[in-house]
Amino acid sequence: MNVSNPEPMLSPDELERRLLEIGAERYHNLHPFHRLLHDGKLNRGQVQAWALNRYYYQCRIPAKDASLLARLPTTDLRREWRRRLVDHDGEGTAPGGVERWLRLTGGLGLDNNYVMSLEGLLPGTRFAVDAYVNFVRERTVLEAVASSLTEMFSGKIISERVAGMLRNYDFVDADTLSYFTPRLTQAPLDVAFALDYVKAHAKTRLEQQGVLDALRFKCDLLWAQLDALHFAYVAPGLPPPGAFRP
Amino acid sequence: MNVSNPEPMLSPDELERRLLEIGAERYHNLHPFHRLLHDGKLNRGQVQAWALNRYYYQCRIPAKDASLLARLPTTDLRREWRRRLVDHDGEGTAPGGVERWLRLTGGLGLDNNYVMSLEGLLPGTRFAVDAYVNFVRERTVLEAVASSLTEMFSGKIISERVAGMLRNYDFVDADTLSYFTPRLTQAPLDVAFALDYVKAHAKTRLEQQGVLDALRFKCDLLWAQLDALHFAYVAPGLPPPGAFRP
Repeated sequence: MNVSNPEPMLSPDELERRLLEIGAERYHNLHPFHRLLHDGKLNRGQVQAWALNRYYYQCRIPAKDASLLARLPTTDLRREWRRRLVDHDGEGTAPGGVERWLRLTGGLGLDNNYVMSLEGLLPGTRFAVDAYVNFVRERTVLEAVASSLTEMFSGKIISERVAGMLRNYDFVDADTLSYFTPRLTQAPLDVAFALDYVKAHAKTRLEQQGVLDALRFKCDLLWAQLDALHFAYVAPGLPPPGAFRP
Repeated sequence: MNVSNPEPMLSPDELERRLLEIGAERYHNLHPFHRLLHDGKLNRGQVQAWALNRYYYQCRIPAKDASLLARLPTTDLRREWRRRLVDHDGEGTAPGGVERWLRLTGGLGLDNNYVMSLEGLLPGTRFAVDAYVNFVRERTVLEAVASSLTEMFSGKIISERVAGMLRNYDFVDADTLSYFTPRLTQAPLDVAFALDYVKAHAKTRLEQQGVLDALRFKCDLLWAQLDALHFAYVAPGLPPPGAFRP
């Protein structure tokens, strides 16, 4: 947190503007791996590596949300946040996000047990995702909520991804990509709540800075996951010892 | 931990042999970035990036050791482990490892305040190092001690590094590299203790597997740090937003 140049308190709208600015500079839609993925420039093995690694992120999201839920002080807040658990872990016959992600890895030809074993995971993926879970567990509720705000930018990337992947990869079909469709309606609800929350609850300049830093941290860890994938599977293409080899 | 194929208990010597095997396969002296560094193939900016990022590892080592020290049950064990704090944080007029590392970054032309601010750090470095600190805080004392055993392999790499860097880089001199000299005598003492400890205290096959997995985890996180450096500063050479640019 940079406190060497204390600024006056930001208006809620100015805080939102700065959050958007962070996304415009740092969200992982700007990462070269992302462009390659969407533009059909990856082979099947590289797309498998992406899906396999991203599975770890998906499967830790409920742990992240549960640890925040455990610290929320009111019924209303907990019910709001509980929706995320339902989205990711499913309910009755509706599969959650984690299960839908396995449909994606399965559709790409990866064995479910192998994916779930995490054996082929890049260490860089593990460290980045664990950093997120630990951040949410250890920081203030305000910072934890703020770290979810990358969803402000996810709508565009998901639309691009689905369209681009269906157009460019013959080994991908709409069923394989069914993970993404519900996210297009779930994410905006999540964002509406979380953005209102940070705008209302960041009551000092320092807390506002914490909100901005939390979003920057979250962008960094999404970006670092693509760095690790790009390094291991695109250029120079050096998967570390023990990692998945297509 | 792979428990699908339970094996009989290993002899202490067989455990040691398997630890050495992990080092032979996974220690970061095998990473291409390391070869480039030692062989004089990096420019000054790339060596700066290495030293800047590695500073974060150095400066978190005392936190890692203190959190283990806090959980050690006897005076003897705590005194043994306390030696590591003295090595890294210094004592009276003898500078510790962290201070000596700043001599290295300073000798390379980096401003101490900038280095210590961690502002230019690669997120991949931060996540890997934090994973280490968290591992030591959260796992068993046995696994935490085992994770220090990469020092079994550090003697060779340090000798190669010092000789190679002095020979190949005119911006590096012996004073700049003074970090490494004491490590050549400190590390073997640390290893002697830690290796005896894990050989004596891993009393089930599962605990032995925990020891092996801890060393593998530690190798992974050293490796991941070089992946991040290589990706950002060598090939393809894409430092993430906000990271140090030489």
